[in-house]
Amino acid sequence: MKPLKHLLDIQSLGDEALTSLLSTAHRMRADPDRFRGVCSGSLMVNLFFEPSTRTRFSFEIAARRLGMQVVNFSATGSSVSKGESLLDSFRVVQAMDPDIIVFRHPDNGSAARLAEEAVKGVHVINAGDGSHAHPSQALLDLMTLQQHFDDLSSIKVLIAGDLRHSRVTHSDVAAMRKLGVGEIRLASPVHLRPDAGTAKGTVQFDKLDEALVDVDVVMMLRIQKERLLDTEIPDQLAYHRDWGLNQERLRLAKPECLVMHPGPMNRGVEISSEVADGPRSLVLDQVANGVFVRMAILLAMR
Amino acid sequence: MKPLKHLLDIQSLGDEALTSLLSTAHRMRADPDRFRGVCSGSLMVNLFFEPSTRTRFSFEIAARRLGMQVVNFSATGSSVSKGESLLDSFRVVQAMDPDIIVFRHPDNGSAARLAEEAVKGVHVINAGDGSHAHPSQALLDLMTLQQHFDDLSSIKVLIAGDLRHSRVTHSDVAAMRKLGVGEIRLASPVHLRPDAGTAKGTVQFDKLDEALVDVDVVMMLRIQKERLLDTEIPDQLAYHRDWGLNQERLRLAKPECLVMHPGPMNRGVEISSEVADGPRSLVLDQVANGVFVRMAILLAMR
Amino acid sequence: MKPLKHLLDIQSLGDEALTSLLSTAHRMRADPDRFRGVCSGSLMVNLFFEPSTRTRFSFEIAARRLGMQVVNFSATGSSVSKGESLLDSFRVVQAMDPDIIVFRHPDNGSAARLAEEAVKGVHVINAGDGSHAHPSQALLDLMTLQQHFDDLSSIKVLIAGDLRHSRVTHSDVAAMRKLGVGEIRLASPVHLRPDAGTAKGTVQFDKLDEALVDVDVVMMLRIQKERLLDTEIPDQLAYHRDWGLNQERLRLAKPECLVMHPGPMNRGVEISSEVADGPRSLVLDQVANGVFVRMAILLAMR
Repeated sequence: MKPLKHLLDIQSLGDEALTSLLSTAHRMRADPDRFRGVCSGSLMVNLFFEPSTRTRFSFEIAARRLGMQVVNFSATGSSVSKGESLLDSFRVVQAMDPDIIVFRHPDNGSAARLAEEAVKGVHVINAGDGSHAHPSQALLDLMTLQQHFDDLSSIKVLIAGDLRHSRVTHSDVAAMRKLGVGEIRLASPVHLRPDAGTAKGTVQFDKLDEALVDVDVVMMLRIQKERLLDTEIPDQLAYHRDWGLNQERLRLAKPECLVMHPGPMNRGVEISSEVADGPRSLVLDQVANGVFVRMAILLAMR
Repeated sequence: MKPLKHLLDIQSLGDEALTSLLSTAHRMRADPDRFRGVCSGSLMVNLFFEPSTRTRFSFEIAARRLGMQVVNFSATGSSVSKGESLLDSFRVVQAMDPDIIVFRHPDNGSAARLAEEAVKGVHVINAGDGSHAHPSQALLDLMTLQQHFDDLSSIKVLIAGDLRHSRVTHSDVAAMRKLGVGEIRLASPVHLRPDAGTAKGTVQFDKLDEALVDVDVVMMLRIQKERLLDTEIPDQLAYHRDWGLNQERLRLAKPECLVMHPGPMNRGVEISSEVADGPRSLVLDQVANGVFVRMAILLAMR
Repeated sequence: MKPLKHLLDIQSLGDEALTSLLSTAHRMRADPDRFRGVCSGSLMVNLFFEPSTRTRFSFEIAARRLGMQVVNFSATGSSVSKGESLLDSFRVVQAMDPDIIVFRHPDNGSAARLAEEAVKGVHVINAGDGSHAHPSQALLDLMTLQQHFDDLSSIKVLIAGDLRHSRVTHSDVAAMRKLGVGEIRLASPVHLRPDAGTAKGTVQFDKLDEALVDVDVVMMLRIQKERLLDTEIPDQLAYHRDWGLNQERLRLAKPECLVMHPGPMNRGVEISSEVADGPRSLVLDQVANGVFVRMAILLAMR
């Protein structure tokens, strides 16, 4: 595989690159020590304009495992408060000659705009831009699926919840299509339906109970309150009644149905604690795999 | 000494482990270069849900001296603002496979609750949980005492101030008991008295002047405003008059009496600047020793 | 050159030390790999009491390139919120035995006050103290001038904007005097004129148009809103009309006139985007050079 220039979304990632990243991540999980320090001397900058724990942490730990140096920028306590534009902040960071800039921002498409500004030798990773894309999340979700199913074409996967504002949905659906998942189901309240592009090639449902029937995997999403108007935020109890995954509802799916969630979870809203902590939950496997796919991404940019 | 699993409080630390940590810390102080890089490749996460300078810094510097990698999490700018529970935050961090999680939180007992969740290979260090415990502070205080007194059984130590809310008191008293300090005195305003468990085996006073008579060491504590109701916070001038350690009052103690304070100090409240910066003050020795005891703790978990 | 103890301002830096730092920085730019890891094992602490992106980042990256360990302190989420004094915060950090403390604070002269407290082996770098000094910025600006002009005595340099509150002006003028810049011009609105000490040996102007005539380099400064009273902050449009550098106004200078700005830029206020992004802009060269001068400073303190 030729070196990866940027990682902006799943759509622009070649099929071969996608497969290669995943297979590297699996090898890293199997033998983590083999990759310690292989990117020593490289510098990764976390340039985050939105709060994040798991993604920033995961990239930072991935980079350190590879021996990279890491410098963290967050919008608080920075030139941004002095009125500097996003583009200027990016250019300033870039002028300090990092190898990789991991970028998160509330604006759709902002990562691609910055990548256009990137000079030779600087790689941009989109760690979430608005409701547009979150490709490293899709990679870790697909890695998790691959651990459990040898043949993705034989499985049915349901993504349910706030699909309209979910960059995870957009990236996951794209990745599942590329890797040939048998059936991709989407279920959401009517006002939280995804755009037509994301829905393409999927089967859509208006009711969680109907969507669950016969699926092998269900991925629950949280309500993206930060992207909804106050009047759009559903009542939590009512939402849980109609759209929350609990033990009883899970019985509608296949007997061995696995449960995923990109986190952070709102227990008692989109998922019950019983399910979140139950034997079919892959939530913490997703987190663990996140470090490995990010190591694979960083290594591919070397 | 067998490897240390967690460090939650002084009570649950074996006597042998306590002695061993302290003697390692003294050796580290004597020959810091010998220990550089000995934990290279290990990852420590600072998981702090309360503001901190010295403790977080001290652990971070200790870890780096040993060659460890450090990733900092603070409650601001994190998933916590998206409503994630403490337990979920811990599990997410743990799933990324750190070796050590240094934890601070306002809830009493929270460190022990997390330690129950810790998987094999993950060590939890309590860096302060509410008013319950702060064991690494007790270790650095005892190390500082040991530097000045060959025989702890022959000395009288006074801890004075807000004892009710002080995790330092709870841990220091426990450590001083284990190491056989001759007499442990506690002095506080009536409404800031410690609980019965902490007071056990100590001599209690209601007046600072009386408590000071004949002591070898006095440790002054700040008012924990963040744990008091507004109506409970004493007037600063009045507090200084009755409970502030100044040069004149210090004359009541032994002529060579040493002065300690875990910091941050409120000058002119519980301690006068004259005393804080005077020749008997060990305040900065305590800080310096803090790095060494934390190096010893981290090394013991390897 | 003998080791540098502190870097507090340009005035107190010997002429030989100034020249030597700059020549080291140029060599580092020419051959960065040669200096990788040469300060391995040293510890730098960023002790910042004001928001900063580029300066903190630049020091952090410089230190990491040299193999140093870096620990970041910022006033938010720290003992400062518990009422600890600046001096105590400094002493606590110092007691943890760092090699270098990089310090930024809103009070004029605060860096020198801390340097008086520094023990043997601890070096203080002033990364900006109020409107007093910002010596590493002056070094990077002079390095940038040296890249473009072999003979500084033959050039005219204009600094324009809010000179009264600008630590950059104070340090840059001092450095340009020491290195013999041919003519130093200062232009500002009347109420933003510099103090007499800074103005000494410069040519002062009340109008940007007049000041620009025949200059080789113009450095534009932003309005330091954080140091102005609300009533003193000029209207942005009016300011841009009289004091903004745009393409048309730039024609008043020499045909090849270069443009500098210490950042963060307020586009459309003190500088137009056309000029900021134009072929004569050295803004990003300044940022890149910042890492090299800071590497030179850190190395000189070894």
